Amino acid sequence: MIFLNAAAGEDRHAALVEAIGRALPDVPVVRPDNGMDPARITEIFTWLPMPDWQVYPNLRTVYSVSAGIDQFADLPAHVRLVRMVDPNNARRVCEFVQAACLACLRNLPKYAARQVTRDWVPATAPFMSDTTVGILGLGEIGAMTAGRLAAMGFCVEGWSRTPRQIDGVVCHSGADGLDALLAQADILVCLLPLTPSITGILDAGLFARMKQGSSLVQVGRGAHCVLPDLRAALKNGQLSQAMLDVFETEPLPAEHPGWDLPNCLVTPHIAGRIEPASAVANIVTNLCRDRAGEPLLWQVDREKGY
Amino acid sequence: MIFLNAAAGEDRHAALVEAIGRALPDVPVVRPDNGMDPARITEIFTWLPMPDWQVYPNLRTVYSVSAGIDQFADLPAHVRLVRMVDPNNARRVCEFVQAACLACLRNLPKYAARQVTRDWVPATAPFMSDTTVGILGLGEIGAMTAGRLAAMGFCVEGWSRTPRQIDGVVCHSGADGLDALLAQADILVCLLPLTPSITGILDAGLFARMKQGSSLVQVGRGAHCVLPDLRAALKNGQLSQAMLDVFETEPLPAEHPGWDLPNCLVTPHIAGRIEPASAVANIVTNLCRDRAGEPLLWQVDREKGY
Ligand SMILES: NC(=O)c1ccc[n+]([C@@H]2O[C@H](COP(=O)([O-])OP(=O)(O)OC[C@H]3O[C@@H](n4cnc5c(N)ncnc54)[C@H](OP(=O)(O)O)[C@@H]3O)[C@@H](O)[C@H]2O)c1
Ligand SMILES: NC(=O)c1ccc[n+]([C@@H]2O[C@H](COP(=O)([O-])OP(=O)(O)OC[C@H]3O[C@@H](n4cnc5c(N)ncnc54)[C@H](OP(=O)(O)O)[C@@H]3O)[C@@H](O)[C@H]2O)c1
Repeated sequence: MIFLNAAAGEDRHAALVEAIGRALPDVPVVRPDNGMDPARITEIFTWLPMPDWQVYPNLRTVYSVSAGIDQFADLPAHVRLVRMVDPNNARRVCEFVQAACLACLRNLPKYAARQVTRDWVPATAPFMSDTTVGILGLGEIGAMTAGRLAAMGFCVEGWSRTPRQIDGVVCHSGADGLDALLAQADILVCLLPLTPSITGILDAGLFARMKQGSSLVQVGRGAHCVLPDLRAALKNGQLSQAMLDVFETEPLPAEHPGWDLPNCLVTPHIAGRIEPASAVANIVTNLCRDRAGEPLLWQVDREKGY
Repeated sequence: MIFLNAAAGEDRHAALVEAIGRALPDVPVVRPDNGMDPARITEIFTWLPMPDWQVYPNLRTVYSVSAGIDQFADLPAHVRLVRMVDPNNARRVCEFVQAACLACLRNLPKYAARQVTRDWVPATAPFMSDTTVGILGLGEIGAMTAGRLAAMGFCVEGWSRTPRQIDGVVCHSGADGLDALLAQADILVCLLPLTPSITGILDAGLFARMKQGSSLVQVGRGAHCVLPDLRAALKNGQLSQAMLDVFETEPLPAEHPGWDLPNCLVTPHIAGRIEPASAVANIVTNLCRDRAGEPLLWQVDREKGY
């Protein structure tokens, strides 16, 4: 077992060397510029895919730095892929979605836009208890978020690929389930992973099936959302406002039209954040399980794609 | 008993005539342009003070359209003043403050400002459980808000004139109490009524006693806050951001500097809203109590001023 740390950050590297060294003293932890024959590498920790996976014939496991793993679509099928699961990250995303849903409830993206033009236009707002939040994706993060929003007082419905049950949340699945959720949601939250079948899911067709005047909170992946379609829906009032935390190109370039969609608040991918300590602990846990012949935790189903 | 409805809104007037007529059929409900001798008027429902209180020598009670009653400082001392208390209004303000506190937690006023200049600058945010909200004013609205913020996961402290006890909330009172609260609060919420001793309370001296980098949510009355002092505190980073819902002049004129304080989100006095039905019901309840010789509800202590 030789562990290649291809993730950025020298401080994180030191922590990783220290933690792996304590648990598994015989496992070398190396950096990409180490000069070692790539054929000896068995495990890689990285955010971006390696330039050429073929140079690692003995690669067994890739540990993703992030929760999303859509960037690893080209990884050879026999290599195990482990995504980063950090309970603090889920909680952090969840608190952001709470903030975003309340911001939409009280029209903050709209007032931010009106502030720029100095327009004083009070509008009434409904109560949380008269507002339905629809959550796309009921995984690690979506399920926690659904529960917290319901506890706060929102009506909550959710959608997943396979049927789920969550206390206090109306759960849908499949294509019909999506239509049912879209018909109810006043605020739609995207917490899906990025897979081919749901790339571009937030498009004109979906916006047309939403309630007129509803809001979008996009915290999935940039490629879930067709920005020109969103712009059109915001412009013609089909959607009243949006909050976007993720984009196909990040950082969003200054000249990008994503900065100025009408009634849309942009945040710079800050919903979640993996803490270095959690990342290191997760990797060590899995290396030890692997050594002991136990199944890995948080392993991605390469066929499903998440 | 002759009831003068000097509040705006013809639909509200019809509802008032109908409801008072049903409960107290012998009480005439008139409009300001009715031609009646003002000396016959005994009760007035109004938002603004009447041009000259002296023309109503037999006035017994003024019913305020709003929760705030600072505009009635010149009302003769013997006239009873009843403020508008509407449980839905308290809940509405409370949900706005929840939105505003989460917006500050996740730096939304700051990101809204950076969106205008197209700056992608991610910043980390603490959890609710590591964040203290300090609430100035623990009355009808402040107490409900404190409880809800605590239930959501924030640490909550509060300040009132007289000592209060609220489950899960650290309560302070008096001048020392204010200093103790300011030393703890990461987000300061103003839910005070406007009285002479606390006019301009949100000034340079107070901001200097707050934690560096903390946030302000101002939902009290415009005159609580010295805007040039707030601008200076936001500019030099003593405060990191603010949300302002109330101003001394409303609607805020387009040329007013209040529109462009740094990292400050402006909303057009939409935290609360009195529902016409609640307003009518509250008045009828009190007219009936008065007729039966019972003490009025929600009567303002003219000496305290709220
Ligand atoms: N903005 C940020 O900072 C940030 C931070 C963290 C995560 N995220 C995003 O949030 C996503 C979700 O994270 P997670 O940890 O909750 O993922 P997860 O545990 O893998 O859950 C994914 C959920 O999406 C559902 N799903 C997948 N494909 C679907 C399809 N075709 N139709 C309907 N539902 C489908 C899954 O359904 P089943 O339950 O049936 O499997 C599951 O409920 C991440 O992939 C990432 O894109 C963003
Ligand atoms: N933005 C909006 O849309 C909106 C909507 C509704 C209300 N408001 C504002 O919110 C205010 C509060 O409403 P409310 O119904 O909660 O009022 P309230 O029931 O009268 O409560 C006032 C609170 O402020 C405290 N207080 C008063 N003077 C003080 C002083 N000098 N020092 C310390 N504490 C003092 C009182 O202390 P004690 O408990 O010791 O008496 C009490 O806790 C209103 O007056 C209005 O300005 C704004």
